[in-house]
Amino acid sequence: MSEHPKFAVIGGGSWATAIAKMLSVNLPEIAWYMRNTAAIEHIETYHHNPNYLSSVEFHVNKLKLTSDLNEAVAYADYLIFAIPSAFLNAELEKLTASLEGKVIFSAIKGIVPETSLIVGEHFHLKYNIDYNNIGVITGPCHAEEVALEKLSYLTIACANEEKAGVVASKLSGNFIKTKISDDIVGTEYAAMLKNIYAIAAGMAHGLGYGDNFQAVLMSNAIREMKKFIRKVHKMKRNINDSAYLGDLLVTGYSIFSRNRMFGNMIGKGYTVKYAMLEMSMVAEGYYAAKSAYKLNEEYQAKTPIINAVYSILYEGKDPKKVFKKLTDKLD
Amino acid sequence: MSEHPKFAVIGGGSWATAIAKMLSVNLPEIAWYMRNTAAIEHIETYHHNPNYLSSVEFHVNKLKLTSDLNEAVAYADYLIFAIPSAFLNAELEKLTASLEGKVIFSAIKGIVPETSLIVGEHFHLKYNIDYNNIGVITGPCHAEEVALEKLSYLTIACANEEKAGVVASKLSGNFIKTKISDDIVGTEYAAMLKNIYAIAAGMAHGLGYGDNFQAVLMSNAIREMKKFIRKVHKMKRNINDSAYLGDLLVTGYSIFSRNRMFGNMIGKGYTVKYAMLEMSMVAEGYYAAKSAYKLNEEYQAKTPIINAVYSILYEGKDPKKVFKKLTDKLD
Repeated sequence: MSEHPKFAVIGGGSWATAIAKMLSVNLPEIAWYMRNTAAIEHIETYHHNPNYLSSVEFHVNKLKLTSDLNEAVAYADYLIFAIPSAFLNAELEKLTASLEGKVIFSAIKGIVPETSLIVGEHFHLKYNIDYNNIGVITGPCHAEEVALEKLSYLTIACANEEKAGVVASKLSGNFIKTKISDDIVGTEYAAMLKNIYAIAAGMAHGLGYGDNFQAVLMSNAIREMKKFIRKVHKMKRNINDSAYLGDLLVTGYSIFSRNRMFGNMIGKGYTVKYAMLEMSMVAEGYYAAKSAYKLNEEYQAKTPIINAVYSILYEGKDPKKVFKKLTDKLD
Repeated sequence: MSEHPKFAVIGGGSWATAIAKMLSVNLPEIAWYMRNTAAIEHIETYHHNPNYLSSVEFHVNKLKLTSDLNEAVAYADYLIFAIPSAFLNAELEKLTASLEGKVIFSAIKGIVPETSLIVGEHFHLKYNIDYNNIGVITGPCHAEEVALEKLSYLTIACANEEKAGVVASKLSGNFIKTKISDDIVGTEYAAMLKNIYAIAAGMAHGLGYGDNFQAVLMSNAIREMKKFIRKVHKMKRNINDSAYLGDLLVTGYSIFSRNRMFGNMIGKGYTVKYAMLEMSMVAEGYYAAKSAYKLNEEYQAKTPIINAVYSILYEGKDPKKVFKKLTDKLD
C-alpha cells in the first residue's frame, strides 16, 4: 500500500456524509459511492448532499463521486462502509472488483440480516478478509452534530494498530477527537446491542415510564451488554469507555434515535408492522434484537432486556405485560 | 427496639414529602418534622404540602406533624433526614433529645459544608452514632416522579443488613422497588459526586457542547467516580449499579436538576455569584465540588472533571478555556 493510502466512502446517508466530510478535510481526494445519481449530480452542482446534512459544504474538486461501487472499490486502499446493514448484502452482490488487500472499516451499526453476523464477521467469513484488514468506526456520534461542528469523539478499532491509527488520523479534526482500540468485536457488538436498548428505552417511554426508570434501564443495559460481549469475545475492556457506555447513552437518551422512536411507537400501542411502515426505514435494532436473541441461545448470558424486546417484536407479546415483568428483573 | 419501629421524616421539601408519602402508605403513623408551621397547617387542613409535590394527598390521621425537631426525634426509632445538607448543621444544633439508639438514615445527597463530611460520617464523628445505626437512601429518583406514581427504584444502604431491610420494606410499594446494599460510603459519595458531574453537564450544555460530548462526559464521569470512591473506601462494588450509574444518569441528563441548571448558567456566561443568587437555593454540587477537590488532595485520584468544575467555581477560571482543556483529557 502506498504511503498515502486512498479512501472511499460507501454510502449516501447522513453518517456517510459526515465521514466523507471528515476525510475530505484531511485528504486531497476521496472516492464517494452512493446509489442515488440525482444526489451525486446535486453534490457536484451545489456542493452539498441534498438529502442528508445538507448544511455541510464540500470542495467537490476533492470528491470522486460515483454510483458505481466497483469504481470506488478499485480506487481505494481503505473502504469505509456506511450504509444500513439491511442493504449491505445487496450492495456487495454488485461487487466484481477484488477486495484483496483492501482495508475495510465498518461504520455500520448493526447486524447483516441475511447472515446474522456483525459486519466485520460478515467480511471475514463471506469475503475471506483477514481480521488484520478489518476495522470499526464507532461513536458516540450523531452525524447531525458533526454537521453542526459539535465536538465529537470516535473510537477506531482494528486488530492492526497501525491501520487503526491511519484511519484515526484521517478522521481527526478540530471537532473530531479519535481514539484507537483493538477490540473490534466488542465495539461492533456494543454498537449493535445499543440499538436494542434504545428500542427498549423508547418502549418504556411510550408505555409511560419516566426518567427514574430510564436511568435504571440504562444502568441495567450496560451491565447486560458487558455480560453479553464477554461471552462473545472475552478480553480486557472497560465497558464504561465511550465506545460502549457513551454510545449506549447517546442513543438511549436521544429523542432523534430511529431505534428509540420505533420503540416509542410500539410502547404507545402501534403494532410492530405499523411502526415499521410508518418509518421510512427499518430500525437497525429490529434485526439486532433477533440476532442477539438467537446468538444468546448459544451464549446463555443473562439478558432480560434483549429478551423482552425480542418477545415484543417477534412473538407478538404485549409490551405492557412484558415490561411489567421486566421491571421485576431489573435493579 | 419494638417489633414495629416508629419512623420520623426530617424535612419539608420535595424529597422529604415523597418519602413521607412512601412511608405513610406502609405504616399506621409517622412523625414528620418541618420548620415551616404554615406548611404544617396547610397539610393538616388540605392534606397536601402546599410547596412541594402538592398533588400528593396524605391521610393526615397518619401524620404526626411537628415543627419541633426534638419531638420528632424523641418519637421515632428510625430518623430519615431529607433536608439540604447546607441546613443540616443548623437543624442539629437545635437537638436536645438524645440520638442514642436511634437509627439514622440520610436521604441527603451532599456534603455538610461546615465539616466537609458526607452525612453518615458527620453523624458518626460528631454525634458518635455507630455505623451499624447509619444508613443511606439513594436513587435514581426524582421526587416529582414519585408524585406522578412513576416506577422508581431505591437503594437502601446500611452496614446492618436487617436495618436496611426494615427501611426498604417500609419504602416499597406499587411504584417503588427497593434494593439493599452494604456500601454506605460508596453510595453516599456517589450521590454527592453525581451533583458535581451534573454541574459539569450543565456547563457543557451552556457552552454549546452537544449530545455527543455529553455522552463522552458521562462515560468519563462514571469512570472518574469509580476511581474516586475506590480511593475513599475500597470494596467490591459494581459502579454500574443503579445507585451509582443510574443516579448519575438521572441527574446528569435531567433538565430539571438544580445542579445541571446551575452549571448551565455558568456555562452561558453568568458569574458564579449571580447564578447562586438567581437560584433560590445553592446547588448541592457547589459544596460537593470543593469538598471532593480538597479530599482528593489526599487521595490523588485522577479526577479531571471535578478539577475543572472546582477551578471554575472556586478559582474564577474561564469555563470556556477550562472545558477546552478538559476535552483533551477525556476519551
